[in-house]
Amino acid sequence: MLLREGQSAIRALLGPDGWTCDAARIEPRLWDHRRRFHGATALLAMPANCEQVADLLRLCSQHRIGVVPQGGNTSYCGGATPSADGSQLLLSLHRMNRIRHLDRDGFNLIAEAGCTLQQVQEAAESVQRLFPLSLGSEGSCQIGGNLSTNAGGTAVLRYGTLRELVLGVEAVLPDGRVVEQLRSLRKDNTGYDVKQWFIGAEGTLGVITAACLKLFPRPFGHVTAFIGIDDLERCVRLLSALRDALGDAVVGFEVMPRAAVELALRHIPGITDPLDAAHPWYVLAEVSLRSAEDNAAAEFSSSLQGWLESGLVRDAVLASSESQRLALWRLRENIPAAQSREGASIKHDVSLPIAAIPEFVRTAGAAVLARLPGARLIAYGHLGDGNLHFNFSQPPDGNAAAFAAHTQSITRLVHDLVAERGGSFSAEHGVGQSKVEDLRRYEDPVALELMRRLKSALDPLGIMNPGKVL
Amino acid sequence: MLLREGQSAIRALLGPDGWTCDAARIEPRLWDHRRRFHGATALLAMPANCEQVADLLRLCSQHRIGVVPQGGNTSYCGGATPSADGSQLLLSLHRMNRIRHLDRDGFNLIAEAGCTLQQVQEAAESVQRLFPLSLGSEGSCQIGGNLSTNAGGTAVLRYGTLRELVLGVEAVLPDGRVVEQLRSLRKDNTGYDVKQWFIGAEGTLGVITAACLKLFPRPFGHVTAFIGIDDLERCVRLLSALRDALGDAVVGFEVMPRAAVELALRHIPGITDPLDAAHPWYVLAEVSLRSAEDNAAAEFSSSLQGWLESGLVRDAVLASSESQRLALWRLRENIPAAQSREGASIKHDVSLPIAAIPEFVRTAGAAVLARLPGARLIAYGHLGDGNLHFNFSQPPDGNAAAFAAHTQSITRLVHDLVAERGGSFSAEHGVGQSKVEDLRRYEDPVALELMRRLKSALDPLGIMNPGKVL
Repeated sequence: MLLREGQSAIRALLGPDGWTCDAARIEPRLWDHRRRFHGATALLAMPANCEQVADLLRLCSQHRIGVVPQGGNTSYCGGATPSADGSQLLLSLHRMNRIRHLDRDGFNLIAEAGCTLQQVQEAAESVQRLFPLSLGSEGSCQIGGNLSTNAGGTAVLRYGTLRELVLGVEAVLPDGRVVEQLRSLRKDNTGYDVKQWFIGAEGTLGVITAACLKLFPRPFGHVTAFIGIDDLERCVRLLSALRDALGDAVVGFEVMPRAAVELALRHIPGITDPLDAAHPWYVLAEVSLRSAEDNAAAEFSSSLQGWLESGLVRDAVLASSESQRLALWRLRENIPAAQSREGASIKHDVSLPIAAIPEFVRTAGAAVLARLPGARLIAYGHLGDGNLHFNFSQPPDGNAAAFAAHTQSITRLVHDLVAERGGSFSAEHGVGQSKVEDLRRYEDPVALELMRRLKSALDPLGIMNPGKVL
Repeated sequence: MLLREGQSAIRALLGPDGWTCDAARIEPRLWDHRRRFHGATALLAMPANCEQVADLLRLCSQHRIGVVPQGGNTSYCGGATPSADGSQLLLSLHRMNRIRHLDRDGFNLIAEAGCTLQQVQEAAESVQRLFPLSLGSEGSCQIGGNLSTNAGGTAVLRYGTLRELVLGVEAVLPDGRVVEQLRSLRKDNTGYDVKQWFIGAEGTLGVITAACLKLFPRPFGHVTAFIGIDDLERCVRLLSALRDALGDAVVGFEVMPRAAVELALRHIPGITDPLDAAHPWYVLAEVSLRSAEDNAAAEFSSSLQGWLESGLVRDAVLASSESQRLALWRLRENIPAAQSREGASIKHDVSLPIAAIPEFVRTAGAAVLARLPGARLIAYGHLGDGNLHFNFSQPPDGNAAAFAAHTQSITRLVHDLVAERGGSFSAEHGVGQSKVEDLRRYEDPVALELMRRLKSALDPLGIMNPGKVL
């Protein structure tokens, strides 16, 4: 249980608006996004500014109280769920949701950690700039959580993960000291890049309270194609060929098998098959236009014509309006929802060297199906980043619970095959509490020991998000 | 002096090709690139592979021998020059110069640390890919040194600094253990990103022996313009306007004053004035073409026409051939050479928030000229990255030594004004040994203390590049 002495000091420190014990407000925050973990706490801290965060962490250090930072609570790995014993304090920065600075000519902005991702996108948009990070949960996830998990999303191929979009960070250490690295500089080689340590650390080294983020020129529009292809090898070759032809204009390259499209057609109202005939694989490719005069659409079209003739692709349709474009994305984005309608599933968020993906899907698919006869492989994702959602649905007539009982052994099998090929068991979802064992199993032991050294150096009392990552 | 006992063990370990005591081979490596520092050592180690580097560092740890890694010896801050007391071992990885892996469809390659930057560029080019890092010293600097200093160069606006171009690293710790993080993954969120710690650490935490680097689609060609402008404020607005019009196609945006152009015209044979009349400021802007069909050149032209009409720019010329393009870059790249012909100079490699640059140049320029009457301000650089080479040449009729004697006080004045505006005293050159005092003065004390903690955690005996950075 939270120390009583600590609790009253925390309340006094934060003032009446800065905390709550109201179970109705706290309870939804005690379940993780996928409802696989449930924690307990008596107190939710809601500081109003960086100074209060600093004072709070200093106090928690004094009382040895574990602190669990929580953004929009959209973690897929239980990364923001406190322990079940009630000993940890839950910390939300949702009151710290100001855009502190918006620099149009400098192509950057400073956002407080409690801003939603959408709020950051809209602030950029308000000065005709693009903040390129885009996720399904962008309306509710918070930029502090995005930073702490080095979020990825659909535009990594062109813009990188969040780590590459950060110019500066303001963070509070467990002892209450503030790291002031809120710079907006594109080039700054003055000692070790301390801000990097906090990005992707899942709140285990300190609390990010604000960040300076890179902005980009806003695309004038997009050209989006849905392409039928014979096999995954050709999908990989198409990625190369498309980037050869259109270079940096290629911003998205998603792949999905026929089985995934069929699930969406079956379960999602209003989805129609974009192509006349069925194909084993599909690519959803998107190209951005810099201006009304940009002729990338014509270049894309003529390239597609050549690939049709050479047999690299079998059929293709270009969205001829924004609503057609959104319909194509809707098909892609509804695959997880459609899959959930088919009963139990076993899911993996892996990444691999792009060239290794076709062989991996064949080998790992066969290995799993040998153990789970009748299961259906739904492998789709961001091929441009080597990021695959490698999922299996239960047999149509099978028992859900019996299928789900195989999760641990199948995941071990899949992650072993990923590791053998130099891949990652967590491409974008992080470690949280659900993948701590995976990190121990697959990480280079020297790197793992270095991580522990950094943790000890920055959080010697171990109060920051205990039980997560390491 | 190097411990005799250590020396013989090192020789035995590395074998006859792995070391030299030949003063003629060692001496050129004891001077830094700008000949401001001179060190001493009895032994140059030249290991052939990662295992030998590991064995060597283990041995140096046992004997408490300081190790100074040196790449192409092109540091501007004495970062690779050993101490003058002869106690440190000089380490060169030039024999480790293989491209271990070249993945065309995966858009990456693995290079050993001793590869020159040009070798890496050419390997990429051999599979029709671009490795975008480009520096004046690319023929001699080594990728290991580039990684250790987070090198920048001329294409940061579009491609970022080297940190953003690295997918994986292999590094040896001071105790001889090897960090195996040579992944080629675009997305990998599994614990702290240990590879980040070694990038830009200037060899003070361990030795990078190889890296997996991102490749990009190779541009089909470039459109390059030389533009005359009334003032720096308009240069900043032009950067915004050009990125608005041409987005990601903008890869370079250099700025220089009339005084810099005049120096080049005066001293560099074959340089001609690209524009008919003189203008206070010039921008050299470059746009990349993705294919033969790309109409960015026409878009650039028509945008320039509008800016001429609105008065944002005064005059402009577009290079109509590759040789014209190279002539424009030759003008820009010869400014330092031309400046060196004007006698003594006092130089700074600073970065600032882009919007702050015009006011900074006015204020800092006036402050320095008040102290050094008759000196000439030559402020030029990568405006697109906020990176300014803020230099002063001596008065034409003055005494060089007397002028140079002001270096320390002028640098203090300039760096203070940079720091007040949230800028950096070292945009791309790093800290080395020449800017250790600056780091102490200007860095956030909390961040500085964290850097020391990481140094202690990874190099508790302090054998890695002693006296550099911290």
